[in-house]
Amino acid sequence: MAQIMDGKAYSKEILEQIKHKVDKLQKKPSLAVILVGDDPGSQIYVNSKEKTACELGFVSKTFRLKENTDPKELKDLILKLNSDKNTDAILLQLPLPEHFVEQDFIELIDPKKDVDGFHPLNCGKLMTNSNPYAISCTPKGIIKLLKKYNVEITSANVLVIGRSNMVGKPLAQLLLAENATVTVAHSKTKKLAQIASKADILISATGINGLITKDFVKNGAVVVDVGIFRDENGKIKGDVDFEEVSKIASLITPVPGGIGPMTIAMLMENTLELSLKNAKF
Amino acid sequence: MAQIMDGKAYSKEILEQIKHKVDKLQKKPSLAVILVGDDPGSQIYVNSKEKTACELGFVSKTFRLKENTDPKELKDLILKLNSDKNTDAILLQLPLPEHFVEQDFIELIDPKKDVDGFHPLNCGKLMTNSNPYAISCTPKGIIKLLKKYNVEITSANVLVIGRSNMVGKPLAQLLLAENATVTVAHSKTKKLAQIASKADILISATGINGLITKDFVKNGAVVVDVGIFRDENGKIKGDVDFEEVSKIASLITPVPGGIGPMTIAMLMENTLELSLKNAKF
Repeated sequence: MAQIMDGKAYSKEILEQIKHKVDKLQKKPSLAVILVGDDPGSQIYVNSKEKTACELGFVSKTFRLKENTDPKELKDLILKLNSDKNTDAILLQLPLPEHFVEQDFIELIDPKKDVDGFHPLNCGKLMTNSNPYAISCTPKGIIKLLKKYNVEITSANVLVIGRSNMVGKPLAQLLLAENATVTVAHSKTKKLAQIASKADILISATGINGLITKDFVKNGAVVVDVGIFRDENGKIKGDVDFEEVSKIASLITPVPGGIGPMTIAMLMENTLELSLKNAKF
Repeated sequence: MAQIMDGKAYSKEILEQIKHKVDKLQKKPSLAVILVGDDPGSQIYVNSKEKTACELGFVSKTFRLKENTDPKELKDLILKLNSDKNTDAILLQLPLPEHFVEQDFIELIDPKKDVDGFHPLNCGKLMTNSNPYAISCTPKGIIKLLKKYNVEITSANVLVIGRSNMVGKPLAQLLLAENATVTVAHSKTKKLAQIASKADILISATGINGLITKDFVKNGAVVVDVGIFRDENGKIKGDVDFEEVSKIASLITPVPGGIGPMTIAMLMENTLELSLKNAKF
């Protein structure tokens, strides 16, 4: 039976350490969150981020814009926050409503305040190992959790399923930097189960509930579930058939309580780090 | 016996097409090449680039700086070229002498003139599929050559050996964008031959002469050799044991005459594209 990688417990530890550091700071880190529209999932995330930021003693401000906001208004808000000395970190909650060209607004955020690490400059700095201002929270949290459980990443055959700009692609870069042999699979991959069953570490970020059955998993593999999916009863589920897979994996993350809380903890860590860097300028 | 993917012949075709376009332009594309120091390999490359640029009717200017140049001098030159309206494209020949922090100078080049696509902003735009100003020449040339020979990239299992910022990493991004299932292997990879022998397309960019023997290659695989290595007799060799591997591969690039000339052709294509974009500003 697999050991559970408890992201909830570990994220609490990390948040306590952050709080400890923040308590000693005269100028508290400040996070601006922008939420456009009424997406219920986004509302939940934003509330949770806001709550955590407040608990840590951050200055957190959420800007809620209407679904039908003029793109010009969002642009002006981002530019204002970019030049605001009292804002260390800017989070633009995605997805944006359909009439926004998302990438244009991601690129509008000052890379030095880009707490999600989604700006291409930060992606490119990540890819070339040249000091991104911030690293995408979910991938960063995954690496941190693997290390907490002493998973050997160097020379491991790691399969990342999913090639999103937010998770799959930056995660592949981080894993390469950790000396893993990295494969990225996705919707066009053929014989996925066969490829997956060779992996020492299997990381699934597809959002397809129950995709990863035991046929996808090598005996003793480490399994990380980045999927998040709310079923008709409001219960949160992941990509992995936990009951089945936990019988053959050596380590596994649960959903909820795995990568989700690690992501929020990394967001807070990034905010703190950006504020400390900004203080130096 | 494998069919040869003739990069030399195809690059000539591409260069002729470029020349045809340039002939019609009133303002010719201009390329500034910076060479610091006396590295003999770099001298050869730079001469070859200069020659090709001239043949195409580009305005080409090479700045040769001494090995012991003060970094400040290189910085000033790059900044001058950045703001020079008559320079469309800047190529900083690498490697730089040891007293330069290479990445600092790569990041100094205006991304809009970054003909090699090495600036992190261009790497990040490549990674996120958001219109880089230029794409790294060798990876771009590899994809182009594969397409010329009608190699099916979608859903293919592609192994890239090598994780450099110039070849392996940007190539992996391009292959992902082409819907390949991509594995990146490197010096820390274990059981490389075993992994390689599963690949439909095998691309080796290690610079280790003769690394890829027949044990690394699946019957009928497509093999791309990005290695370049000059032996004691001045003969250019690659990563792949051509004689052995060409007996089992379906398609193979030679060295010389494969990816090398494609890289130069892509450099010229990038210069032309940057000049056309600059003309629009």
